[in-house]
Amino acid sequence: MSKIAFINNKYVKFNNAKVHIEDRGLQFADSVYEVIAVLNKKLIDYKYHFYRLRYSLKELNISLKVDQNRFLKIFKKLLEKNNVTNGIIYLQITRGIQVREHVYEKNIKPNIIIYSRKRKFNLPDKNFYGVNAITYNDLRWARRDIKTVNLLPNVIARNNANRKKAYEAILIKNNIITEGTSSNIWIIKNKKLYTHPSNINILKGVTRTSLKLIIKKMKLTFIEKPFSLKHLMNADEVFLTSSGSFITPIVKIDSKLINNGKIGEITLNLAKMYFKSCMNG
Amino acid sequence: MSKIAFINNKYVKFNNAKVHIEDRGLQFADSVYEVIAVLNKKLIDYKYHFYRLRYSLKELNISLKVDQNRFLKIFKKLLEKNNVTNGIIYLQITRGIQVREHVYEKNIKPNIIIYSRKRKFNLPDKNFYGVNAITYNDLRWARRDIKTVNLLPNVIARNNANRKKAYEAILIKNNIITEGTSSNIWIIKNKKLYTHPSNINILKGVTRTSLKLIIKKMKLTFIEKPFSLKHLMNADEVFLTSSGSFITPIVKIDSKLINNGKIGEITLNLAKMYFKSCMNG
Repeated sequence: MSKIAFINNKYVKFNNAKVHIEDRGLQFADSVYEVIAVLNKKLIDYKYHFYRLRYSLKELNISLKVDQNRFLKIFKKLLEKNNVTNGIIYLQITRGIQVREHVYEKNIKPNIIIYSRKRKFNLPDKNFYGVNAITYNDLRWARRDIKTVNLLPNVIARNNANRKKAYEAILIKNNIITEGTSSNIWIIKNKKLYTHPSNINILKGVTRTSLKLIIKKMKLTFIEKPFSLKHLMNADEVFLTSSGSFITPIVKIDSKLINNGKIGEITLNLAKMYFKSCMNG
Repeated sequence: MSKIAFINNKYVKFNNAKVHIEDRGLQFADSVYEVIAVLNKKLIDYKYHFYRLRYSLKELNISLKVDQNRFLKIFKKLLEKNNVTNGIIYLQITRGIQVREHVYEKNIKPNIIIYSRKRKFNLPDKNFYGVNAITYNDLRWARRDIKTVNLLPNVIARNNANRKKAYEAILIKNNIITEGTSSNIWIIKNKKLYTHPSNINILKGVTRTSLKLIIKKMKLTFIEKPFSLKHLMNADEVFLTSSGSFITPIVKIDSKLINNGKIGEITLNLAKMYFKSCMNG
């Protein structure tokens, strides 16, 4: 249970952590966020999260100067107060509060919400597991590169997956695999790795960025190129990356087993290398 | 200034009207809403608003039984408490509060937020005015028929309009005019009325529904059919409908004057007829 949250300039009891009903995050989804994994008290890939946070704020013209050191201090204090060793930091910035109308005021003051939660992760040890996925129509808006809370299409897709006892929904737009509802999707075919290029059609995942460096070090062949549903289904291995799931193998998509339903060798190696880099980085 | 709001089962001071930071409305835009106009203390077209609210809830699988009479009582009490003669009722229903994750819990309890505000309307009297609009790319998600708070694309378009001193942004998808950021768009050509058909590509506006009945009564020719940017720009008259703007003429789009920048005759007549029906209905 999370006990303490941080709102604007204050640590508050989690149960009393609230925002006003005219906060634009609530009324217009006019808000960005980040979820940062915490492994053994370490904030994983936090520099990339800050980089993306600044990008999201800039694209939406939300004027908040992100003081990384200040945020890091708050994160660490929250982890301490909430006794989190493994878990997540959730950070949300809304444009602020004003009388409801689409046009935002010039000097509106953003609201900052931060809290932490405990969580278990899928790590490449003896308990490492693969997951099922479904495919689903990508219903989202045109700017998936900005990490906003306009997540209802993701919620719909993910709940459809859940009803089918799947962990993730892989989204398809014009026969192209874009990404998952909260993950990037990768395929391996003939020892070559493929994932969708980072443009406005997908969110540039932090784990995706990290993994690219590892792939380079391992001298694997990596091709950033859109791929189709057919390529997905015929892949030798499939996995997803996200800040909450790190590298998680996908062993079944709809009714089709991938790699005979087993975790692939390259996926396992990548997961191990990524985990190692997290612990050493 | 709004003094009192209603949250779940309580009237609360507006300044203290808050929701928890793990409300799914704030974290996932997992929430629907309605804005109901109040003219001379009358709730305009409220039956259509309830109809649409139920539709939105059903489409999102939010299990709240809407008790219309109970809501109407709350609306009237709020108007009284906040001393509103002309203004709006804002009603938002979120899926509820839970530990953040895309999959929602089975028995999650929706949050109900209601408040009122004073507002002046553009009425067809001696002060009736036309507005400017811009055209803008329709960046929204695929289910515009559900009235959700996934409004960031609307916010972006509307703020672009505002920067160009325009009142509304008219959205274009594949060269088709869908609607405005918070209005339906109508054109008149050779005394015939056109507007986009109500399907998943637009929100079925309440004023749009009401106006259709008036058009029928007036025996005007009305064609529900998608029309292009070219048709828009070459129209004899253009207007928008919404619960907040009723029927408002558009007299300039981008740099092009419509009807020489004057309010058109048919638009004016429709606005008068609609206003009359509001006062008598």
